[in-house]
Amino acid sequence: MFEPSVYEGRRRALVSLLAGRGAGSGLVAFTGNRESPMNYADNAYRFRQDSCFLYYFGIAEPDLAGTLDLATGRATLYANELTMDDLVWTGPRPCVDDYKALCAAYSAAPRTRYVVDLSASKEPILFVPPYRAETVLELSRALDLAPDRVAAAGSVPLIQAVVAQRELKEAREVAQIEEAVDTTIAMHRAVIAAAQPGVTEARLMAEAYRVAYAGGGMPSFPAIATTKGSVLHNHGYPGSLSAGGLFLLDAGAETAAGYAGDLTSTFPVSRTYTDRQKAIYQIVLDAGAAGASLMKPGTPFREAHLAAARTIAAGLKSLGIMHGDVDEAVAAGAHACFFPHGLGHQLGLDVHDMENLGEVWVGYDGEPKSTMFGLKSLRMAKPLKAGMVMTVEPGIYFIEGLIAAWKAEKRHASFIDYAEAGRWLDLGGVRNEEDWLVTADGARRLGGAFDKSVAAMEGYRA
Amino acid sequence: MFEPSVYEGRRRALVSLLAGRGAGSGLVAFTGNRESPMNYADNAYRFRQDSCFLYYFGIAEPDLAGTLDLATGRATLYANELTMDDLVWTGPRPCVDDYKALCAAYSAAPRTRYVVDLSASKEPILFVPPYRAETVLELSRALDLAPDRVAAAGSVPLIQAVVAQRELKEAREVAQIEEAVDTTIAMHRAVIAAAQPGVTEARLMAEAYRVAYAGGGMPSFPAIATTKGSVLHNHGYPGSLSAGGLFLLDAGAETAAGYAGDLTSTFPVSRTYTDRQKAIYQIVLDAGAAGASLMKPGTPFREAHLAAARTIAAGLKSLGIMHGDVDEAVAAGAHACFFPHGLGHQLGLDVHDMENLGEVWVGYDGEPKSTMFGLKSLRMAKPLKAGMVMTVEPGIYFIEGLIAAWKAEKRHASFIDYAEAGRWLDLGGVRNEEDWLVTADGARRLGGAFDKSVAAMEGYRA
Repeated sequence: MFEPSVYEGRRRALVSLLAGRGAGSGLVAFTGNRESPMNYADNAYRFRQDSCFLYYFGIAEPDLAGTLDLATGRATLYANELTMDDLVWTGPRPCVDDYKALCAAYSAAPRTRYVVDLSASKEPILFVPPYRAETVLELSRALDLAPDRVAAAGSVPLIQAVVAQRELKEAREVAQIEEAVDTTIAMHRAVIAAAQPGVTEARLMAEAYRVAYAGGGMPSFPAIATTKGSVLHNHGYPGSLSAGGLFLLDAGAETAAGYAGDLTSTFPVSRTYTDRQKAIYQIVLDAGAAGASLMKPGTPFREAHLAAARTIAAGLKSLGIMHGDVDEAVAAGAHACFFPHGLGHQLGLDVHDMENLGEVWVGYDGEPKSTMFGLKSLRMAKPLKAGMVMTVEPGIYFIEGLIAAWKAEKRHASFIDYAEAGRWLDLGGVRNEEDWLVTADGARRLGGAFDKSVAAMEGYRA
Repeated sequence: MFEPSVYEGRRRALVSLLAGRGAGSGLVAFTGNRESPMNYADNAYRFRQDSCFLYYFGIAEPDLAGTLDLATGRATLYANELTMDDLVWTGPRPCVDDYKALCAAYSAAPRTRYVVDLSASKEPILFVPPYRAETVLELSRALDLAPDRVAAAGSVPLIQAVVAQRELKEAREVAQIEEAVDTTIAMHRAVIAAAQPGVTEARLMAEAYRVAYAGGGMPSFPAIATTKGSVLHNHGYPGSLSAGGLFLLDAGAETAAGYAGDLTSTFPVSRTYTDRQKAIYQIVLDAGAAGASLMKPGTPFREAHLAAARTIAAGLKSLGIMHGDVDEAVAAGAHACFFPHGLGHQLGLDVHDMENLGEVWVGYDGEPKSTMFGLKSLRMAKPLKAGMVMTVEPGIYFIEGLIAAWKAEKRHASFIDYAEAGRWLDLGGVRNEEDWLVTADGARRLGGAFDKSVAAMEGYRA
């Protein structure tokens, strides 16, 4: 975690932002995460602190909570007291006052007081919508609200203020993200080095995780490590690598402080791409470059997405898979048969940064989202600002079920050659993902060298 | 998972067991686990199915549920229907009827019907106490019961019947556990091979996890990988290995089907134990052997625990750390200053098998547990039966805070030489853990060769 004054400064800025939105009083409640049980209460997954709690209080320990009084600007840190059992079982750990000092809170109180204080507050309670059921239950008790009504009672002004603050990364945050990206690059290089025909997907996923954990943090999300790149959310690892096929790795690490990296590589199992693989791979690289070249303050990220989509449509047209006017095809959404997702998302303390705060605020400034297939999956469309960190991750996929469904209804038949598309099904899917920081006049790729060119990718395995 | 008939057979046996306990009618509700969010709803930890659901329905996918009608013996499997989005994002997956076939259920229904059916049931609903908040919330809705009253409404006859069934491992389960133990041995051998002065705890923990994931399953619990063996529940990895120190690894894998292994090794960072380390290590080995030698059907596991405790007390007496009569010292609980935990626990689909069903049934057959320090941490005391799988894991620890607290109150001063004990603080802690199957006339260690003798441990690193 950072110096205590960092958290005090962030809380002070939040108070100002909320005052500017007319919320000059109220009690903001930050419920830290609890342990998350796997198969019984005491067998928990690796602890992951709530990102808002991390941002404003910084302490990555379970069973903490914090409040921020908007009228006074004073923060209270809630933590369990030490017991004799702690001494025997978990060894010395910080006490309540130690925690208070770590986040420069004004006061500290026993954890059990959190619900009591919220219940007794005469000021309105502001909170962001919870995503863990334990938090729903605790807020339900504190607010005397049915559990299924808690999420909707989240505070929109608070969400807007938190998004406005967290989406502009501080220099110390950019350094953390860059450290995460570097560990992520090491994950990818290790997997590429270990890949060969016959190796299991599970073994390569394990290799990626090894590097993430060895870095002192953990994987920032469940890795996609697959020979079937056309299955977009592929979280199983049942297969083995075959000569001549592609392997898609979408995996990242987060640092011990919680900042995420997120990269995707698609490389040939047999070291060199086939001509057809090379053709698709190069279009995907070009699409990423087209998107990234547009990134600068003021440009809506939607435009970067559409630029990448046009590059993909033009590339597929050159291969005879699409035809007609490229601009018209993209405007109609025909390219989304092969590129059904968005170009990217914000990256920070969460791999999809602030996703729990709602895409409408994080990616759309409250504007309605397109309902068109493809664009409806774009997580971020609003204008970029200096200090934002974005992933850029175009892809081309030959999804048998999707192509068959569209072909059957002759959807976009003037733009798609379904007969030709059907001849590419064995290619599967290709995605390339990089992490970019928006700067004062453009954008900068984060992390050390990781050349994704065909020649470089073919050269990484000795 | 096993053949569908296995699950049908287990459910039939459960119906019989409950009928024998007077529960001839009722609806047993098995709520499968949902995805467990890390830092937002769609960023989930690796999925872990509920072990009771796994045992009776076998399917390790999220968002499933099952009911078992005790009057008719008929089971219903509840699952979400496939959508067009599944086709694009997750690829083909089994449909509701496929799931029904996999577990040989009598009927299938949409997942949304689960709460409806439980609410509408005229029969009493039997369930085991939930340990995940999402399950508490769902049962709360289904039973129209306040969330904080759900756990206490769990069915004791059901718990007793499930324990009676799950504690006797089928041959196919023993084979699974043995596979998990073999992967676990590979984890330990990999960590021993990678250890050397300067290496971080995080890197060794990562090496253990790599082997667990590469095996197709996952770690069965958060590994303890530490240079400070005296901190019993040490789940952080902040340190580095120092020449002359010990490293304690308590880590296990579970198979893809969910069965756990659980081993502990304590080995010297500098390849060979010092004389003092060797002395303590040998006592711990001897304690495990003493405990295991008593294991056979009919013998209470408490006796194995006490035999190990006497071996530890005798060993510490030979080193001048304890004195007086060994039997009296153990009866008084003096040894627990150095061996404060129990000898072991059941092992199966959970690493502490069935811990969510309550120690009073799993380990004590409803008998009260000792409140004496040390014995109160014994998870299992009741008589062994053929087919039970137990861990055997004695340890000796020099816990500074505990020794200081006891010394200050002169606790057991006739049995403990606190001056001498204080001279061993730098040793930290030693634990050795093995997994044993109770057989018809004794017990058998599970897994392939893993010689823990001093000579073997010193020879594993080239």
